[in-house]
Amino acid sequence: MWKAEILAVGSELLIGGHAETNSLFLTDQLASLGIEVRFKSVVGDAEADIADAIRTAARRADVVVMTGGLGPTEDDVTREAVARVTGRPLRRRAQAVESITRRLAAWGRVPTTAQLRQALIPAGAEVLSNPVGSAPGFCLEWKGTFLAALPGVPAEARAMATAEVLPSLQRRIARRRGQEPLVPIIRRVLHTFGLSESEVDLRLKGVVPGGSGLRLGLQASPLGVLVSLTASPFGTGAKRWQSTRHGRAGEVLARVFHEIRRRLGEFAFAEGEDTMEAVVGRLLADKQLTLAVAESCTGGLIGHRLTQVPGASTYLDRVLVSYSNRAKVEWLGVPDRLIVKHGAVSKAVAAAMAKGVRKGSGAAVGLSVTGIAGPGGGTAAKPVGLVYVGLDWGKENSLTKEFRFHGDRHAIKLRSSQAALDLLRRWLLGLGVGSR
Amino acid sequence: MWKAEILAVGSELLIGGHAETNSLFLTDQLASLGIEVRFKSVVGDAEADIADAIRTAARRADVVVMTGGLGPTEDDVTREAVARVTGRPLRRRAQAVESITRRLAAWGRVPTTAQLRQALIPAGAEVLSNPVGSAPGFCLEWKGTFLAALPGVPAEARAMATAEVLPSLQRRIARRRGQEPLVPIIRRVLHTFGLSESEVDLRLKGVVPGGSGLRLGLQASPLGVLVSLTASPFGTGAKRWQSTRHGRAGEVLARVFHEIRRRLGEFAFAEGEDTMEAVVGRLLADKQLTLAVAESCTGGLIGHRLTQVPGASTYLDRVLVSYSNRAKVEWLGVPDRLIVKHGAVSKAVAAAMAKGVRKGSGAAVGLSVTGIAGPGGGTAAKPVGLVYVGLDWGKENSLTKEFRFHGDRHAIKLRSSQAALDLLRRWLLGLGVGSR
Repeated sequence: MWKAEILAVGSELLIGGHAETNSLFLTDQLASLGIEVRFKSVVGDAEADIADAIRTAARRADVVVMTGGLGPTEDDVTREAVARVTGRPLRRRAQAVESITRRLAAWGRVPTTAQLRQALIPAGAEVLSNPVGSAPGFCLEWKGTFLAALPGVPAEARAMATAEVLPSLQRRIARRRGQEPLVPIIRRVLHTFGLSESEVDLRLKGVVPGGSGLRLGLQASPLGVLVSLTASPFGTGAKRWQSTRHGRAGEVLARVFHEIRRRLGEFAFAEGEDTMEAVVGRLLADKQLTLAVAESCTGGLIGHRLTQVPGASTYLDRVLVSYSNRAKVEWLGVPDRLIVKHGAVSKAVAAAMAKGVRKGSGAAVGLSVTGIAGPGGGTAAKPVGLVYVGLDWGKENSLTKEFRFHGDRHAIKLRSSQAALDLLRRWLLGLGVGSR
Repeated sequence: MWKAEILAVGSELLIGGHAETNSLFLTDQLASLGIEVRFKSVVGDAEADIADAIRTAARRADVVVMTGGLGPTEDDVTREAVARVTGRPLRRRAQAVESITRRLAAWGRVPTTAQLRQALIPAGAEVLSNPVGSAPGFCLEWKGTFLAALPGVPAEARAMATAEVLPSLQRRIARRRGQEPLVPIIRRVLHTFGLSESEVDLRLKGVVPGGSGLRLGLQASPLGVLVSLTASPFGTGAKRWQSTRHGRAGEVLARVFHEIRRRLGEFAFAEGEDTMEAVVGRLLADKQLTLAVAESCTGGLIGHRLTQVPGASTYLDRVLVSYSNRAKVEWLGVPDRLIVKHGAVSKAVAAAMAKGVRKGSGAAVGLSVTGIAGPGGGTAAKPVGLVYVGLDWGKENSLTKEFRFHGDRHAIKLRSSQAALDLLRRWLLGLGVGSR
């Protein structure tokens, strides 16, 4: 089996608040071929550092995918570093010149001298054309390692990985003879809300059979605990997994994943790339229900999340962020005396907000949140993190729920939005929703 | 001067949609001491891979900060890998046992056998206590490289880096004699909106004097173009920079940064960690103006952003996400005939929404956005990305502006929210706001 390393080039990835994201996509793409990313590295624009990183990567990986450093400026020296390490001098390649010229012509421009530097490719390397931007990439084989260099711009790196690098790797894999076939790395993900990481851990104790080669992963965030199950040729029980035919491997994973879902039950709200807002949206659309939301401490985050889903306008009528008490009274009809008596952050006001936004909008369901996101505004009786969620579906049918969250302002907003959407999901599914 | 490498351990950082973020914080902390992070690496939980990564890092860096793999499970093998590479056997350390026991006692628990594995520390290493969680860290010197191992949990890694690793490095730096002093790496950041990356590039041509050792960086995102200026001992003109005294280096950077600000003028809206929503919030608070917002295609994102700023309740009255036309008519008083005649995405409706939300709320200023975020809903006349922003401050005083954005749904929402807040910022500052 093949090991891979992803090598991102760019000083901006080293200095300053900017995480590298191309590697996430590339890892998934390589996994689909059965190539496991074992190392990721980031290096700045210094040619000697890039050269060092290439040597290290080629020593320990069969496949090295580089991103960045292929632009037209003097800081872009990935080409030079590869040429230096592999001993293959840079040559201006007609195919690359033509590709740059054609791309710029489409934008009504002609290439500058600097842009033509991008046509310099190490001798003997295959030129990879760029369907999105102007910088071509290249790939070559050196000391038994396949090395591909792609631009750092995510849209370009993605397009070229899909259109050029993966097919090239597939051809190489097909040419191997008399060796174990590569087994695609399969990963399934389940999203849960309402259980702590240790509660999830307890429920899943012993779910993965020893020697199955499956790997269970838990990851907590304000949106809940993410559970992943990976079948990788490098996990525990790797030997057995490698000798397992792919069809069978998929079966084992499916069976264990099914059992994980069963044990997590109603706390599991989505799989894979799916999200809480998309799940809630589909349920509303299926039941042909419209929704109106009254937010306070979440400040618009619930609306923002619901409208991240294309087509949300079919079920989302309106969202009011009633940040001031006046807004609660004037537009939601929350009685003044309720706020005076119980305070804006209270069960009673949450219930009145949900009812008010439903009645005022004519939507089928009203959802509300009121709470203290902090850092200021907390008291001993009502600390930062105290949040009430309300739901109202007419005819005196309503419920409210109290939460006590921790974390900073952003984490409390995230948790509150997730708790509100989860309450709505549970109600739509006819599940228990806890205390009234 | 010293070079550093940050080495993050954890299979979850290799597989799946999860970016490593500890390194961003650590990079800033090390830069403040004059230590430049030259490499970042990520490796899974395989002991042999971690050992390989440690050897590589120690060969090319003076300081190696590791995060992750210090937990109580069998997958946590950073301790073992360090012991193997450095030839220092693991010993159970009384100080570590005591620290784990004390931490767990505070939570009313006693350590399990697994948790006590966390007290195994390579012989001769200094134990780093963990003020947040149970896993202690450690640091040691090996072949002239300073190596620190911290837990992967961000809150723990941050607390321990600040309380333990940096002071330890500072002591080491103080002990060096007869060598060049370390020069802190200074970085300043300016945020712009309204200019393309190439327009910013053009305005800044020649702003950095050759041989100054300063490095200019541009980075485009839907929120604008970020300009960074870094004084690093490793940049171009490094020799000169190194021999420059720190006070003077800071002066040169300040002068160039001032000139950058001047050239970018009103397009520069914030510096450093500051944000558009915080800038707008301060301007509103200073002028004692209240704000009400009517959003459509941004779906609550403007409200969410404004309420990320603590204390937003002093100037933010309410936000209505009038996703349905009914909401626009009923709660904002947008005349039905306006929507029929011009469509919901139009200058006329944007103006009516801003006026409606201002009048309905009694706030001093009304801000509105209406547009097509896509992917569906676009036509030849009104394509995806067409967005109108409206501003109304009473007495027939209003303005609207048209934008044509590109990108996916999320990018268009981000750009639209930024364009709306920037229009408000410009109006609050009495700057030109473009076409009416």
